[in-house]
Amino acid sequence: KKITVLAGDGIGLEVTGITQNILEIIGERFGHKFEFSPALIGHSAIEATGAPCPQATIDACNASDAVLLGAVGMPMYDNNPNLKVRPEQGLLKIRKELGLFSNIRPIKLFDELLYTSSIKPEILQGSDIIFFRELTGGIYFGTPRERNEDGTEAIDTLRYSKMEVERIARQAFESAMTRRKKLCSVDKANVLESSRLWRETVQEMTAEFPEVEVTHMFIDNAAMQLIRDPKQFDVIVTGNMFGDILTDEASQIAGSMGMLPSASVGNTIGLYEPIHGSAPDIAGKGIANPIASVLSGALLLDISFGLKEESDAIIGAVDQFLKEGYRTLDIVSEDTAEDKRMNTEQTG
Amino acid sequence: KKITVLAGDGIGLEVTGITQNILEIIGERFGHKFEFSPALIGHSAIEATGAPCPQATIDACNASDAVLLGAVGMPMYDNNPNLKVRPEQGLLKIRKELGLFSNIRPIKLFDELLYTSSIKPEILQGSDIIFFRELTGGIYFGTPRERNEDGTEAIDTLRYSKMEVERIARQAFESAMTRRKKLCSVDKANVLESSRLWRETVQEMTAEFPEVEVTHMFIDNAAMQLIRDPKQFDVIVTGNMFGDILTDEASQIAGSMGMLPSASVGNTIGLYEPIHGSAPDIAGKGIANPIASVLSGALLLDISFGLKEESDAIIGAVDQFLKEGYRTLDIVSEDTAEDKRMNTEQTG
Ligand SMILES: CC(C)[C@H](C(=O)O)[C@@H](O)C(=O)O
Ligand SMILES: CC(C)[C@H](C(=O)O)[C@@H](O)C(=O)O
Repeated sequence: KKITVLAGDGIGLEVTGITQNILEIIGERFGHKFEFSPALIGHSAIEATGAPCPQATIDACNASDAVLLGAVGMPMYDNNPNLKVRPEQGLLKIRKELGLFSNIRPIKLFDELLYTSSIKPEILQGSDIIFFRELTGGIYFGTPRERNEDGTEAIDTLRYSKMEVERIARQAFESAMTRRKKLCSVDKANVLESSRLWRETVQEMTAEFPEVEVTHMFIDNAAMQLIRDPKQFDVIVTGNMFGDILTDEASQIAGSMGMLPSASVGNTIGLYEPIHGSAPDIAGKGIANPIASVLSGALLLDISFGLKEESDAIIGAVDQFLKEGYRTLDIVSEDTAEDKRMNTEQTG
Repeated sequence: KKITVLAGDGIGLEVTGITQNILEIIGERFGHKFEFSPALIGHSAIEATGAPCPQATIDACNASDAVLLGAVGMPMYDNNPNLKVRPEQGLLKIRKELGLFSNIRPIKLFDELLYTSSIKPEILQGSDIIFFRELTGGIYFGTPRERNEDGTEAIDTLRYSKMEVERIARQAFESAMTRRKKLCSVDKANVLESSRLWRETVQEMTAEFPEVEVTHMFIDNAAMQLIRDPKQFDVIVTGNMFGDILTDEASQIAGSMGMLPSASVGNTIGLYEPIHGSAPDIAGKGIANPIASVLSGALLLDISFGLKEESDAIIGAVDQFLKEGYRTLDIVSEDTAEDKRMNTEQTG
């Protein structure tokens, strides 16, 4: 099985390196052969080729069975609107090129981290949410997106088609059927026309899935409910930008951003990446939490290769690792007295 | 002094009723005469006149010194995209007509509610944030906002001009100067063109306010940081929709949505409303928390009438009320053993 590794920028390199090691160990133990080949994306791709996602990268991904991605983004671009070529364009491009319309983000709290979050343990305990974030539409891709002539006005376009809503909602409904059969669709239908289309479409599909209990929630309310009472949610489906916001927020349910993996699926080839960014401030120091990437590797084995046992072995290892008290700085809590604070160079 | 009261829908009527009573008491005590006149908005305006914000309402607001608003919205509209006339249009219209481009949302935790939130008390203690949400631009107002011919596709437009960013940012900078001199501007400049204009404009203004320490944060990260470590923030400035989302989320910092007031200011006449919605499910039961509306009344006295002492008297009364253990259901915590649970009919 061929895996293309798009390490990207910042801590992307170190976390995907660790995941690759772990996948190799799993491969040996269970008798599979994984072939890894690196390709460029983001700032590092711009440096080397001028493009944030060169054609060679797209070709490499298309020729492989799955893609493991680190993270993209560098601060030098963030405050400089004149740079027309940006690392994030590479990420958006590879998502679009591979047709990855569905970004699956499971939010699960490891028992060991119950006290790590800023949220009270009794609020968190037992929460288990899976997000379906639409990933190739909405305001991330709509056109026109431009400045006016003298640069004093800018527009972006939020566009959704019924088909785009249906295909992501279908995945969410199907997931709900395998879980607690509750689906919450998040939009801003009291203001946005695209949200009214979104809500109407999800609502129509309830006929296909009569067993699923469907609720609709406005994004502002959802941002509040998610931390007020996360246990009320089972499956959440939402658009590209709302999903971006809510899943980052939901990382506090899992204790830290450094814990959350994601799977992006669509046509055929799946892409797996942590939901955290490139965190250039801590890059190269060996202190980044690799768990989000490692768990993305577990999702890869499960979803793209159908290797459920192997996937569970990784999740079990992460659990064990936490039980033994190993922690990166982002998940150290004052309550865990015997924390073994560590740097990730020791974790490979 | 003339105050137009737009009670609106759901609990809007009961909470503005209580606020009006309190303002009358304050008026008597301090020797001011406040004249209240009701006008229609939202669902109740649609029922009576066909329009969610009739011209008579706009005229009444323009002829008064300040506006007190309850809330708008009813569930019968939410799942029915065919209804072209909606309560929320009334709210958006009055904001636009009165030129209320700046929505000020202070997030302050009353000591008594330290244990009410889902967030840990040690994370909350000492947090004190003020939001400046742009209120008459962005994706709430941009055109085109429409369906295609066969209704299978919908678009909304996110539009910002430099002028719109500047005027809200200026208020935020000025507020920061009177506080801890820290300003965080929230955008999604790594993806959106309008956010790049936003960031560039705020960045240019730093020259005018050299003492203010300015940071820029992506909306996804901000949604996470707000609950991970709210104390890092002083003043936050952001666009219409991001502000909508973040301030609802931030209500958990203050213990409950039922605690947060807001002031909308712009040209001349200010409008004051709780950040919560019309909560039709609890309307008329006398259990709604009136504090957000009452504190909106305090903001009205302070900002529109310059009556600082009178405003502080209201805030002090709320504090006292909480100290005595009075609670609506939304702010009951298990830790307050001697809660006097009550219904708000007793609070007038
Ligand atoms: C880097 C950025 C473009 C990206 C996004 O917003 O999609 C990231 O925040 C994510 O959530 O994967
Ligand atoms: C009711 C709705 C249109 C409104 C908004 O989104 O502005 C409300 O959520 C608010 O925050 O005042």
